[in-house]
Amino acid sequence: MLKLFYTPHTCALASHIVLEEAGADYETARIDFASADQLKPEYLAVNPKGRVPSLVTDLGILTETPAILAFLAQSFPQTGLAPIGDPFAFARVQAFNSYLCSTVHVAHAHRMRGYRWTDDPAAIKAMQRKVPQSVGDSFALIEGGMLEGPWVMGAAYTICDPYLFTLAQWLEADGADLSRLPRVLEHRGRVAARAATQRATAQELACPAA
Amino acid sequence: MLKLFYTPHTCALASHIVLEEAGADYETARIDFASADQLKPEYLAVNPKGRVPSLVTDLGILTETPAILAFLAQSFPQTGLAPIGDPFAFARVQAFNSYLCSTVHVAHAHRMRGYRWTDDPAAIKAMQRKVPQSVGDSFALIEGGMLEGPWVMGAAYTICDPYLFTLAQWLEADGADLSRLPRVLEHRGRVAARAATQRATAQELACPAA
Repeated sequence: MLKLFYTPHTCALASHIVLEEAGADYETARIDFASADQLKPEYLAVNPKGRVPSLVTDLGILTETPAILAFLAQSFPQTGLAPIGDPFAFARVQAFNSYLCSTVHVAHAHRMRGYRWTDDPAAIKAMQRKVPQSVGDSFALIEGGMLEGPWVMGAAYTICDPYLFTLAQWLEADGADLSRLPRVLEHRGRVAARAATQRATAQELACPAA
Repeated sequence: MLKLFYTPHTCALASHIVLEEAGADYETARIDFASADQLKPEYLAVNPKGRVPSLVTDLGILTETPAILAFLAQSFPQTGLAPIGDPFAFARVQAFNSYLCSTVHVAHAHRMRGYRWTDDPAAIKAMQRKVPQSVGDSFALIEGGMLEGPWVMGAAYTICDPYLFTLAQWLEADGADLSRLPRVLEHRGRVAARAATQRATAQELACPAA
């Protein structure tokens, strides 16, 4: 049995959607940031980093979205969620997801998590002012070529798609110029229309805090 | 034939070391940040992100260190550089490398690349003041449990080791409190002593800018 620790409106949604896409037998546990659940001893025992997502498996605990997504794709090979038999194609999936975690998500994080990188309130505000540009620029690279269409990797839906969708949910709040990103927005709508996305999203938003 | 685009003193060293560990047939091309080579059209045609590393393969170009490292491990399976036949163990390798790219390297980048996230010189200085703490804290998590010893994943040397080594090269300049990190420093010495590390490092430092 798999168990996903998640917080609504975070990147954990990508793993949640992939669990649904894979038809996995899983349960979820909600971590409430408003109550600082992620820093309580019970959760730090699961993930000492105090972040979501975490995926509890029969073999142990996994963290970090790119790793969880690749693990699910490999664990449910019949779903074709990644080209796991082709090292180069698989590396392209990994490269896309690495870009999302190390550049796109990091640009976004400067809006609400600036305290990670400075203690100065004025600097935190200064960081926030650049988020529309830094997030917009990082998505513009995706718009301009990384997103092949209709799915990120072309004809096949892969673990890149729900991850991009998840981060693209934040574009409006990040203040990015959406007029630069028509293909990203079309893609977002395409992922949103999938039944697995709708099941995962509905579950996260319906479930009350523990 | 593989070709690695690298810049000395960057995370590209991890890929360079793994090419040596794998005994790959490869060549290198140096990108000089001082000349802003990474933003010239010739290089943007290789990697539109304007970053290093990039690995040119017979099948196409790969970017992002975690993806390149996993690709090399899969392309040279006889070297045992990742547990590629075991999805859970492979996911643990990926989780470690994701943490390095999205958290550890990002904390470090606030010392010299603060302009990515703000245009305000005072805010850039404020970010720099927190680097010793944010880098130190991110390595303290590695020290406290993620680094199993003697190698990151335990008994077997994997693609996690040269990547950790590469980022740990910057600890002194980042101002991290080294007294908190004895196991990380021992590991750094252990990787530095390997012949493949010494060949890659020597080549990067000996080769003049193009």
